[in-house]
This record gives sequence, structure tokens and C-alpha cells, in this order.
Amino acid sequence: MRKLLFIFASILILSSCTKTTEEQDKKAILEVLDFQQKAWSKHDLVGFMQGYWKSDSLKFYGSNGVTYGWDKTLANYKKGYPTPDHSGELKFKINDISRIEKASYYIMGEYHLTRKVGDANGIFMIIFKKIDGEWKIVADTSS
Amino acid sequence: MRKLLFIFASILILSSCTKTTEEQDKKAILEVLDFQQKAWSKHDLVGFMQGYWKSDSLKFYGSNGVTYGWDKTLANYKKGYPTPDHSGELKFKINDISRIEKASYYIMGEYHLTRKVGDANGIFMIIFKKIDGEWKIVADTSS
Repeated sequence: MRKLLFIFASILILSSCTKTTEEQDKKAILEVLDFQQKAWSKHDLVGFMQGYWKSDSLKFYGSNGVTYGWDKTLANYKKGYPTPDHSGELKFKINDISRIEKASYYIMGEYHLTRKVGDANGIFMIIFKKIDGEWKIVADTSS
Repeated sequence: MRKLLFIFASILILSSCTKTTEEQDKKAILEVLDFQQKAWSKHDLVGFMQGYWKSDSLKFYGSNGVTYGWDKTLANYKKGYPTPDHSGELKFKINDISRIEKASYYIMGEYHLTRKVGDANGIFMIIFKKIDGEWKIVADTSS
């Protein structure tokens, strides 16, 4: 009986641990996105790019096909948003965060840019992975 | 010296195993996509949906927001593509397959529909996860 109670208690503790971790993960991921919004809205594109995996294996997929790597992705942002008037103010609307495996999540969301040169909106799906203890976007599809 | 050789050999064997598995995974995933193309092109929407995770946790993200679950996703396809003239012939162009974690991959690709009612094209990112030994799409963003 005591053994059974012990097993039951262990399951409870383990499941509550998992839950906390998932909540903590989501909180940490939302913090990255919040940091990105703020950096972008100050036209700090390099700061914005801190949310992305600094690797040649980062992939950004948009209407121009697949962009490979952190450097090329930053270069594209710099080209597309040369001044604060072009970048404007960024607001994300997060519609879903779901765990994929132990250390990976996908996010479905909307971006809204308020700008003098005309507003811009779209949807995205991004994949976050925990790399060296930090949550980083490893793949991004925006349209 | 012999110990060092043993370690070196072990690393070689281990890394080759990982490689084979990743190649096998990608091959299996491409087979699912190929099956989907064929089913869709026969207007077999239920067959096409076999590639998706049969769960309420499946998520499809498009211009109409997030669709939750396998049943609702199929219902949307049936509504959007009521006849073979609407579904037409489907061809995928796969631009990237990358591993996320042990049993998950993302795919960036294009869909091309050849139809009497007018062709349709777009891009997608989907996430495949191995569930009960089978590769299933757990998340799909199409535009």
C-alpha cells in the first residue's frame, strides 16, 4: 500500500514538473518575442536578430524562397527596412504555442507593422529550439 | 592506443548510424508527401488527410486563422475543394527538410495545383513528427 502511494506521489510530482517546465518554456519564448518587438520598434535590427539562431542552418522562408543563415537573413531585413520609417512599430499577435518535442516549440502568429510608409500585416509560423540554454528561432515562414 | 582506436571506431559507427537514420526519416517523410499528392490528385481528400495527425491537437494555420483538429481540417478541405475540378492535380516542390529534434522535422515547400477552374500556388511549412512509428504532419502553415 505504501509502495502504491509512493508510485502515485511520484507520478504526481513528475507530471507537475513537466507542466511547470512547459509553462516556463512558453514564458521564456514569449519573452524572446517581446524583446524582438521592442528591438524592431527601435529599428534595432541586430537586436531583433538576437531571437534567431546565429547559424548558417537558420532558415527563413518567404515569397522569395528559402534564405539560409543568420547573416543573410539580417542582410535581407536591412535591405527591406532601411530606415525607422520602413520598420515602424511591430506588434506580434500569438495565436498558438505548441510543444513539438522536449526542447522545441512551434508558434503560429501574426505580425502587424504600423508605419508612415503604409502598414503591413501577415502571418508566420516559427520554430523555437533550446540551444545552449537559450530559446532561439531556427526556422521562420512569413507571408 | 587500442583504447583510442576503439573510441574513434565507436564515434565513426555512431555517427554513421545517425546519418542513416536521418536519411531514412527523410525518405519516409517524402513517401508520405508523395502519397498525399497522389491521393489529392484523385480527389481522395480522406486519403490525403492520412498524412496528418488524426488528433484534435493538429493545427492548420492559414489566412482564416488557426484550424484545430483533423476533423475540422478535413471539413475545410471538403468545403474548399468540393469537386475534382476544384482539387485538380497537386504537385509539391520540396525546398528544405531539416531535423528539429530526434523525431521531428520541418519541411518548407511549394504546392502547385493544376486545375480547370484556374491554377493555384503557394508556399507552406509543415512539421512532421513520428507518432506510434508513423510520420505525421502535426502543424501546417499554408499561404
